[in-house]
Amino acid sequence: MSLVVLGTVALDTVKTPRGSRRDMLGGSAAHFAMAARFFAPVNLVAVVGADFPAGHIEFMRKKGIVLTSLKKERGQTFRWEGEYKGDMNTALTLNTELGVLSVFRPELTPEQEKMKYIFLANVDPDIQSRLLDSLRTPKLVALDSMNYWIMHKRKQLIRLLKRVDIFVANDAEARALSGEHSLLEAARGLRKLGPRMVLIKKGEHGVLFYSDNFVFSLPAYPVKKVIDPTGAGDSFAGGFMGYLVSGRAVNRKTLKKAVGYATVIASFNVEGFGMERTSSLTLKEIHGRFQAYRRNLII
Amino acid sequence: MSLVVLGTVALDTVKTPRGSRRDMLGGSAAHFAMAARFFAPVNLVAVVGADFPAGHIEFMRKKGIVLTSLKKERGQTFRWEGEYKGDMNTALTLNTELGVLSVFRPELTPEQEKMKYIFLANVDPDIQSRLLDSLRTPKLVALDSMNYWIMHKRKQLIRLLKRVDIFVANDAEARALSGEHSLLEAARGLRKLGPRMVLIKKGEHGVLFYSDNFVFSLPAYPVKKVIDPTGAGDSFAGGFMGYLVSGRAVNRKTLKKAVGYATVIASFNVEGFGMERTSSLTLKEIHGRFQAYRRNLII
Repeated sequence: MSLVVLGTVALDTVKTPRGSRRDMLGGSAAHFAMAARFFAPVNLVAVVGADFPAGHIEFMRKKGIVLTSLKKERGQTFRWEGEYKGDMNTALTLNTELGVLSVFRPELTPEQEKMKYIFLANVDPDIQSRLLDSLRTPKLVALDSMNYWIMHKRKQLIRLLKRVDIFVANDAEARALSGEHSLLEAARGLRKLGPRMVLIKKGEHGVLFYSDNFVFSLPAYPVKKVIDPTGAGDSFAGGFMGYLVSGRAVNRKTLKKAVGYATVIASFNVEGFGMERTSSLTLKEIHGRFQAYRRNLII
Repeated sequence: MSLVVLGTVALDTVKTPRGSRRDMLGGSAAHFAMAARFFAPVNLVAVVGADFPAGHIEFMRKKGIVLTSLKKERGQTFRWEGEYKGDMNTALTLNTELGVLSVFRPELTPEQEKMKYIFLANVDPDIQSRLLDSLRTPKLVALDSMNYWIMHKRKQLIRLLKRVDIFVANDAEARALSGEHSLLEAARGLRKLGPRMVLIKKGEHGVLFYSDNFVFSLPAYPVKKVIDPTGAGDSFAGGFMGYLVSGRAVNRKTLKKAVGYATVIASFNVEGFGMERTSSLTLKEIHGRFQAYRRNLII
């Protein structure tokens, strides 16, 4: 089964206590795809500008990411500049240049329109909604967003939530959208907005999964040295969706395994700048760490 | 095997978004004992004032807590008044009256001096140290502290840490004492101060366990409705030490089970004000929730 991810492909400039990098390949869709590719073919739907390095395109193609619907438009590629301090749990955005992202209209090939597994990574809810309209028979739709849209396009986001199966949010977003402090209450509040599954990412504190029939928490994998958390959430989503697509029925058992693999891939992501670590990763390394993670949960 | 806990017995006045209570039975040693009693006889070492209700004494005695070394001194019982807001993760201390705690000198019976399992709950490190001096052959010593002592009696605390096996701290305390932001780095830093095991409690985010040979994280049990978090950390420590005393060797397997039982008892603690829930708890309820918690961790 193939997976469609709509989101951003960006040039990221990042500073962390461990160092800094300029104009790295980044963006929500790119990080998602770099993680999900281990489990399923990933169709990336995004836009870049005329300034986007051909090397980055080639790099993603070599990793097996399907770039048919990666548009190239006149103008500048979306750029994000951020800094992490202290415990590195929150990024401080220093600068954002939307560039071609401000005129982005996603388009799918006829083949992609028939795909069943969709991840709407963080972009304008109107764009996410438009992509969803163009799909004929989606089977599992997951959505990520961010505080900016929760504040500025709340109505559109809430309308969109009725059409998705899984809402993926970090703790701050879950609290902001639900108005609830307790994460379990927040998850319950988000469930009421439509999505039958809610996944709240708590960074180094792991994940809370909520559905009507079952709830579970799983911890993060303890990473010895965090280098750069950029893209960890999208890598998590990529691992999660990738695992679900690659397999079996969506039930308590497969969802927990999906969260486990997502956790493991996110833990690799933070061990290097940008995609340094996830792009050089092997499936063997992923399985190895998954087994270690799983063993540690047996009590 | 018996367990000795040194700490406070207090009268707590608490306000949370769910309501408020005045002069409840509380304190670190009392909460610890109320949790640990399910697994082992608990010898409580603390002091109360002349104003301490006889009913509270009777209540603890009926729960099987050994009160031989609970002193009664002229003066006022230690009182704490606090409020929890929002996500209830942190208590706002409104008032503290030390009362008889300021002149407390713990004394053990000859029988207690021979006991092997010791929990030094949060009191002045000088008092903790004095108790430790009076023990003849302690086998497993665990210590809790708080930011006040980390700031005001840092030297004494650091000297004391060389003599303990397990240091139990919440995330803020671990960061403050180690000077490290990342909790894994913090745990490693605390390990270097002496204790061969470090347990960092992260409230609703669960626990990180650190030792030279292994590290693990376990999530909190998702509680539907948090009423009052007061004493959750001490209940956790009580469940943890109680489980270790009741059994077997201290190894990776038993430590994880101990953290599991600790997590479960702490989850009951927050479901009521003060000890409302832990005092009425049954071992059957504890085992039941432990099995549910454990099952949810199988991935």
